[in-house]
Amino acid sequence: MSDADLPLSATPRTGLRRMKEKGHSDRSALFDVLRASFVCHLGVLVDGYPMVVPTVYGFDDKHLYLHGSVASRSLTTGAEVCATVTVVDGLVLARSVFEHGVNYRSAMVYGLPRWVTDPDEKLHGLRTLTEHVAPGQWDYARQPNRKELAATALLALPLTEASVKTRSGPPDDGDSPDAERGNWAGELPLIARWQQPLADPALPATVPVPAHVAARAGARVDEP
Amino acid sequence: MSDADLPLSATPRTGLRRMKEKGHSDRSALFDVLRASFVCHLGVLVDGYPMVVPTVYGFDDKHLYLHGSVASRSLTTGAEVCATVTVVDGLVLARSVFEHGVNYRSAMVYGLPRWVTDPDEKLHGLRTLTEHVAPGQWDYARQPNRKELAATALLALPLTEASVKTRSGPPDDGDSPDAERGNWAGELPLIARWQQPLADPALPATVPVPAHVAARAGARVDEP
Repeated sequence: MSDADLPLSATPRTGLRRMKEKGHSDRSALFDVLRASFVCHLGVLVDGYPMVVPTVYGFDDKHLYLHGSVASRSLTTGAEVCATVTVVDGLVLARSVFEHGVNYRSAMVYGLPRWVTDPDEKLHGLRTLTEHVAPGQWDYARQPNRKELAATALLALPLTEASVKTRSGPPDDGDSPDAERGNWAGELPLIARWQQPLADPALPATVPVPAHVAARAGARVDEP
Repeated sequence: MSDADLPLSATPRTGLRRMKEKGHSDRSALFDVLRASFVCHLGVLVDGYPMVVPTVYGFDDKHLYLHGSVASRSLTTGAEVCATVTVVDGLVLARSVFEHGVNYRSAMVYGLPRWVTDPDEKLHGLRTLTEHVAPGQWDYARQPNRKELAATALLALPLTEASVKTRSGPPDDGDSPDAERGNWAGELPLIARWQQPLADPALPATVPVPAHVAARAGARVDEP
């Protein structure tokens, strides 16, 4: 049994809190959510207060790799963090306001992050992150030199304690007395798509858009 | 001078940490970001650890109103929170991996939240939240009855301490030696749009989609 097959640990804080939504405890559900986005919200403790910063991530079987520059001045060494990835799939428009909600996929990863200092792991982590956010760019753009590598703050968060929650489908009041009201109910889906690339105005007009960038235009973020 | 004209308070934690990005200290910049999304990531302290949960919000001049059910079992009374709203506008694809980045708009609101218990404020807050997330639904759907109002957890977070950060435009290495490499550089924009509404399968086919829902299809989330 490989690491990737291990179920996620069940701890009090990864327990489900809302019953109507589905909880998942398998690693494939976690990776499904991680694949569907590239920005997480990292919760850190700063002087005893929670601070939530958006930052890009990538991942392999064992770690979430986070761009740590926003956290570098604030992250207390040895303090646990929570990284949350959320994909909003649409609104749930019910017969009653009370039953309104959101269709979403969300993963929360808890743990003790580690600053990546080993040069090989740093290169691996940065490549993993870059290729997750912008596939094809690691080999196309100039890779980091030694000075840039040293100046890049990379966090590794073990993928061992996590919870995944999702909600999908129509509202829940289709068989309630409110169904007699006769008003419309359903879902208003939301989809984020990459648009046509915009060339840097400083770029000579003769430089073509590379295929790996051009191919993304029109694609959904949550599709491979 | 109304409350809405007051500059945001400058505290150590709302200070800018990254110089390349723009910081804003006026309230209109805050409201611009709050208008452009409807889901925030709420950071709370649970047993001494940060937990980050996605939740819907609405706002008026003075408060961010948050749906508090996900936080209701975990939020420590009297503990400060951080609510972060992020709109991702696209990727910044530079000549070097080191200069890659994200175009985004983000607001972080810090403060001591308060459970809304006054029935009038609760109705106001829920209406504000509902109309922000799903304009037109408050009057179209059945409004909460007394029992439902009592069962709804609503948090109010004062809009007094906040920071706004944004990044936009092309990469920063257009005048660097890397520009001589000749590779393409620019932006890959990302836009989230509402799709065609999907009727609840439990709904009779004769019920029309109301105009306020149909009108959103194709619209950007960050447009009014």
